[in-house]
Amino acid sequence: MKRINIGLLGYGTVGSGVATILINNQYDISTRTGSNISIKKAFVRNLLKERPFSEQIAFTNNPDEIIEDPEIDIIVEVMGGIEPARSYIIKSLQRGKHIVTANKDLLALHGDELFQIAEQNKRELCFEASVAGGIPIIAAIKQSLTANRLFSIMGIINGTTNYILSAMTEQGRDFQDVLQEAQELGYAEADPTSDIEGIDAARKLAILSTLAFNTKVNLSDVFVEGITKITATDIQYAKELDCVIKLLAIAKNRKRGIEVRVHPALLPKNHPLATVSGVYNAIYLTGDAIGEAMFYGQGAGSLPTGSAVVSDIIQIVKNIASESKVIDSINNYRNYPIKAAYDFTTSYYIRLKVKDEPRVFATMALYFAEAGISFKSIIQKPRSNNNAEIVLVTHPCKESQLRQALDSLSSYEKLDKIYNVIRLEANCI
Amino acid sequence: MKRINIGLLGYGTVGSGVATILINNQYDISTRTGSNISIKKAFVRNLLKERPFSEQIAFTNNPDEIIEDPEIDIIVEVMGGIEPARSYIIKSLQRGKHIVTANKDLLALHGDELFQIAEQNKRELCFEASVAGGIPIIAAIKQSLTANRLFSIMGIINGTTNYILSAMTEQGRDFQDVLQEAQELGYAEADPTSDIEGIDAARKLAILSTLAFNTKVNLSDVFVEGITKITATDIQYAKELDCVIKLLAIAKNRKRGIEVRVHPALLPKNHPLATVSGVYNAIYLTGDAIGEAMFYGQGAGSLPTGSAVVSDIIQIVKNIASESKVIDSINNYRNYPIKAAYDFTTSYYIRLKVKDEPRVFATMALYFAEAGISFKSIIQKPRSNNNAEIVLVTHPCKESQLRQALDSLSSYEKLDKIYNVIRLEANCI
Repeated sequence: MKRINIGLLGYGTVGSGVATILINNQYDISTRTGSNISIKKAFVRNLLKERPFSEQIAFTNNPDEIIEDPEIDIIVEVMGGIEPARSYIIKSLQRGKHIVTANKDLLALHGDELFQIAEQNKRELCFEASVAGGIPIIAAIKQSLTANRLFSIMGIINGTTNYILSAMTEQGRDFQDVLQEAQELGYAEADPTSDIEGIDAARKLAILSTLAFNTKVNLSDVFVEGITKITATDIQYAKELDCVIKLLAIAKNRKRGIEVRVHPALLPKNHPLATVSGVYNAIYLTGDAIGEAMFYGQGAGSLPTGSAVVSDIIQIVKNIASESKVIDSINNYRNYPIKAAYDFTTSYYIRLKVKDEPRVFATMALYFAEAGISFKSIIQKPRSNNNAEIVLVTHPCKESQLRQALDSLSSYEKLDKIYNVIRLEANCI
Repeated sequence: MKRINIGLLGYGTVGSGVATILINNQYDISTRTGSNISIKKAFVRNLLKERPFSEQIAFTNNPDEIIEDPEIDIIVEVMGGIEPARSYIIKSLQRGKHIVTANKDLLALHGDELFQIAEQNKRELCFEASVAGGIPIIAAIKQSLTANRLFSIMGIINGTTNYILSAMTEQGRDFQDVLQEAQELGYAEADPTSDIEGIDAARKLAILSTLAFNTKVNLSDVFVEGITKITATDIQYAKELDCVIKLLAIAKNRKRGIEVRVHPALLPKNHPLATVSGVYNAIYLTGDAIGEAMFYGQGAGSLPTGSAVVSDIIQIVKNIASESKVIDSINNYRNYPIKAAYDFTTSYYIRLKVKDEPRVFATMALYFAEAGISFKSIIQKPRSNNNAEIVLVTHPCKESQLRQALDSLSSYEKLDKIYNVIRLEANCI
């Protein structure tokens, strides 16, 4: 049986998950692959810290002991961050190692460079674990759905924000309150900015949409809006409209270009993504042959992410065993333009407070009419102090039209406050 | 660019879907694979019938013009049925052709033989399209989740029965009525037996569980019960219990053996499978590393099934291009026993009618107690003529225990009728 040696760069949550799987499932994995896969060495910064499987795995604080070891075939980068991860990967590729990485931050920023170096060195650079943890969405897009022209991706791909929005929805609680709880439970970082502002989801969306549409999508191409402004009141109104509010990562291949955006959105309760709760992730795709498909599972965590890393390792091991002469590279043969945000067409939910007086609604409606926007649904509830809280749901319009209407409205003296503006997706309502 | 010639055996729903995808998406597919894939010839029985793409595809009514053509690399068997499909595939493998098939009936009966012949001839035998149409569940189990020890599969893998149960649930209609409509709409066959009696789902489950557990599961190993006895009343009671009724295909890897069964079951409304409606399919899996995952999509139809066939074609084309020396074979290295139905442990929903008299409930409860069965939930509604309709939901028990209780009960003179007995899954209620 052929022996394949793995080197780990990093041994935190994901790294120890990879070790757990390779060690606990060794019999099944070796029988399924026909190869004996074992971790030869793991790079860690602090050799004194106690770690799982320290009897089976040799640790080193010198990365070159892994990168320069001619017996190591595959290097798994699970240290995260940009540097030194980037330099280690480049050096490893140049030394003829195949790479498996879970590092979405690095791929979103330096993917082009790394894939090019991998191709030049005829080595694999696999990254299933970089998006949606245990869900095999990269394999699905690159292999299983490759007969399709994909039209759209709509994903819940950030567990932290989905946990927060699910708890707000189920318990009627407010954002700050749930965020604090999520931090205490370890579902949100001490600095949660990258999650709650949608940046983490945007990085993953850049990777997914590049693959799905065979066109380069950069992180900076993605329109991003976080969930910090969503309130328990908005969620309650969404319920009345038979919707839920989710942070969606959306990529659409439209006639006039690619639309890539991450933002909270109202989604109909009967949409397959609507029931994806807590820390679960799901990606919903449409394509010309498959119609609709959805992939659901745990988007993070030691073992689910480890499962994705090991599936990449096994793929490389099979390629080594079959003496495969072709490396699976990223092929951006399309060069689609990226649509600007003002060009997006969606419906909107607008919650505002106005004076409860004659003519106010008529005037307000006129501002929208002047921008070419009509309403799909209206909820008005009386409030104290002669004010009325109104929720307007528009028919689809361009963001530029909405801006025009809101600009006119904001200078209207009878308007007290615009609380929130949230997009609607999937023919909501 | 390397040219790959495809021969089609059959050109019905799936065959024309394959042609549609290969022809319409030719540019994308050739750019993604680096190979020019085209259909050289298609075998049909009737040459006079008008068919799509008859200008691009040559038709023949002599299968040997495909099987014996040295220029054809891959043969796609989409004729269905056992013979002559089996003989054609065997002959094609012996002539050095790779095979892609959508034929679950054939694989469930003769899979062993065909995979052996494929291996002897070092040729691929791919079958993504045989289970759940466009959902890439075979690739998921064989590749993406291969680092896992899978514990269970729970699937909605028959579109006809899911359409019928969904319509019964949404519209409160009865089985016969909806079945007739499904036949008129083409969602059910003129002879619907194989679908409504669960046999189609059992064939697919035999394929899936063999792959998932690396142990041979035959069609005859699967316990099968259809949906013909489910009534609108049962569905209404299920709703009261916060459940839906689905035809589930279930495979569990238990300590004392493999449990494989297809039957209607009550499933909690908040389970990911509960919202899978109409002709959609979904497969929900649990494994030691991924935890839970679900794959959702269209389980049948020309283009979704065609998408799965073409994804297999592309995989073979990539292997040809990389001059891969290893064939992906089925490895049943486990030899688990199959559990008998009397050994299954589930909860049960039992709907019955008894005389509405003192002591009747106590006596009935005693029969269950004597079999070691206790209740989780009870619904009793008064009925006319001194009869009471009662729904009992048991705690988990063995089927042998349930049989004992029902045997005692059936000779009880105060029992009027046992309407239905339905299993519960996923900690329902």
